[in-house]
Amino acid sequence: MSWIQGGGLENNIILSSRIRLARNINDTPFPPMLDKKKGADLIESIYNEETQKHMFGGYKFYAMQETSGTDRAVLVERHLISPNLAARDSIGAVLIDRDEVVSIMLNEEDHIRIQALLPGLQVKEALQIANNIDDMLESKVEYAYDERLGYLTSCPTNVGTGIRASVMVHLPGLSLIGNINNILHAVSQVGLTIRGIHGEGTEVLGNVFQISNQITLGRSEEEIVESLIGITKQIIDKEKEARTTLMNSYRMKLEDKIWRSWGIMSNARVISTQESMKLLSDIRLGVDLGVLKNIPIQVLNEIMVEINNASLQKQSAAELNSTELDIIRAETIRAKLA
Amino acid sequence: MSWIQGGGLENNIILSSRIRLARNINDTPFPPMLDKKKGADLIESIYNEETQKHMFGGYKFYAMQETSGTDRAVLVERHLISPNLAARDSIGAVLIDRDEVVSIMLNEEDHIRIQALLPGLQVKEALQIANNIDDMLESKVEYAYDERLGYLTSCPTNVGTGIRASVMVHLPGLSLIGNINNILHAVSQVGLTIRGIHGEGTEVLGNVFQISNQITLGRSEEEIVESLIGITKQIIDKEKEARTTLMNSYRMKLEDKIWRSWGIMSNARVISTQESMKLLSDIRLGVDLGVLKNIPIQVLNEIMVEINNASLQKQSAAELNSTELDIIRAETIRAKLA
Repeated sequence: MSWIQGGGLENNIILSSRIRLARNINDTPFPPMLDKKKGADLIESIYNEETQKHMFGGYKFYAMQETSGTDRAVLVERHLISPNLAARDSIGAVLIDRDEVVSIMLNEEDHIRIQALLPGLQVKEALQIANNIDDMLESKVEYAYDERLGYLTSCPTNVGTGIRASVMVHLPGLSLIGNINNILHAVSQVGLTIRGIHGEGTEVLGNVFQISNQITLGRSEEEIVESLIGITKQIIDKEKEARTTLMNSYRMKLEDKIWRSWGIMSNARVISTQESMKLLSDIRLGVDLGVLKNIPIQVLNEIMVEINNASLQKQSAAELNSTELDIIRAETIRAKLA
Repeated sequence: MSWIQGGGLENNIILSSRIRLARNINDTPFPPMLDKKKGADLIESIYNEETQKHMFGGYKFYAMQETSGTDRAVLVERHLISPNLAARDSIGAVLIDRDEVVSIMLNEEDHIRIQALLPGLQVKEALQIANNIDDMLESKVEYAYDERLGYLTSCPTNVGTGIRASVMVHLPGLSLIGNINNILHAVSQVGLTIRGIHGEGTEVLGNVFQISNQITLGRSEEEIVESLIGITKQIIDKEKEARTTLMNSYRMKLEDKIWRSWGIMSNARVISTQESMKLLSDIRLGVDLGVLKNIPIQVLNEIMVEINNASLQKQSAAELNSTELDIIRAETIRAKLA
């Protein structure tokens, strides 16, 4: 089930859990050094007549060079490919399963990047899914693997397990109470990284943070995942405490903030992504606290994805300028909330 | 018909028209010098068993000393008495007709202040009503009148006709376009005064201005009224031009502003008078421009009156603090807009 549909544990705080495994094929140059022919051969070795039938029946295949810029950007906005893959015009490709849980990027920074993305706190479940795909692929190709180092990767930070485990967390309580910087600092002290919603180098929008492991070498996949889950649970507790404090000590102010954000969100005619994310954060908090009723989490997740520029652009034949995007964004939100 | 119900000409810009006549009784000290006994005698000379039957049958009578502070403040908020009368604990009184069109203040700064208040641009109609009351009272008491100066008043600025004619105008277009200061300056150049919504010394709230004549001496009542109407019509034209410009050149931005104000106004849980008036101004503009539909002007006028502190306080037995007022204000607005 796609993370957008909601579900999983602690899904009032944890939007999604993600596992990404980096793998490369033995005796083949890493993608940055790979020419077009060899890139195509690599894809063929994984996605071919036989695997289409027996392995990737329910999958969609996108070769980046045959996919429009807008469609690629939409895949980024849905967290199904990385911005990096979207930019790899000549040799990049991706396989995405029907439910948008699994995506297998080919010729990104590494030959193969397996991603499993689930709603709520389901890091272990995501690891299980990713491992199954990994085993399946390993039966078809020979991985670049070193007995001492583990999986070899294009960038040294991924060497070892090649795993990145991450959770997307929504922390409006800690942000409002002013404790968010302490938390972010504590997280970075234990070898985890905090990023914005679209990963590395992206802005934090609407109090949504991505927390992921930094270290891939010298620890087992299970240890990495356990450590992330442990810290995440502590953050969940802190966030819940913050929400309780807010409701106990600033209830009316908080309810006012939530209702105003709802009022603006459901009435604005022109709105930026930044502002939408800010208001959406208040609304999501309001739904969790029971202040706002009858708004399914799925609707909030859909808005979070569909307010992005490429998803909006896809609704229109003509190229939209920034004001036109702001207008269609407002229309899209109103339609979703109606 | 009360101005709150709406009606009259140009009522998308002119909220109300008001005439106030200042009169004093011959051979009686002006109210500032009047003792309690003489003050009571003066009231008795106007409001007595006979006039209650034949003149003031449909009127309510409020002696300030028998009226609670909250009730007095409510009368001020409804524009039926002046803040000055509300403060005259010992000898002040007022007669108010059933429709809240006519109010006759006794022992304010002058012995008698006749007010006629109508919706929309109806200054002449208000003058007619005030003159009728004036004639009626003159048949009962002898006015202090000087052949050369005209009506004698407590404050020299009222000597002569004793008339103050005013209109309450809503100028959001000129405010948004940034031309409001030019207009205010021009108005002051032709002997008119601009004030805030509650008259002398009060703040301008929600783009509502009170325009009134400055001069009472050396010009006839008709000249004073004609001059005010003439200037008001010019202001109306300028405001309409501004609204047209806004709709032609900034339509989407303007609609966005209006809808956001509507969204906040109909959802806030805590709101100040200042903010309410600001949002109400946008909503009133939105109704006039057809952006917002099915909101009667009467509802907007009721909100404008009922969001004030004393009107809110009247709903509650206990004394409300500022936060409690902000909460009840928000509730009142939501109920009105629902």
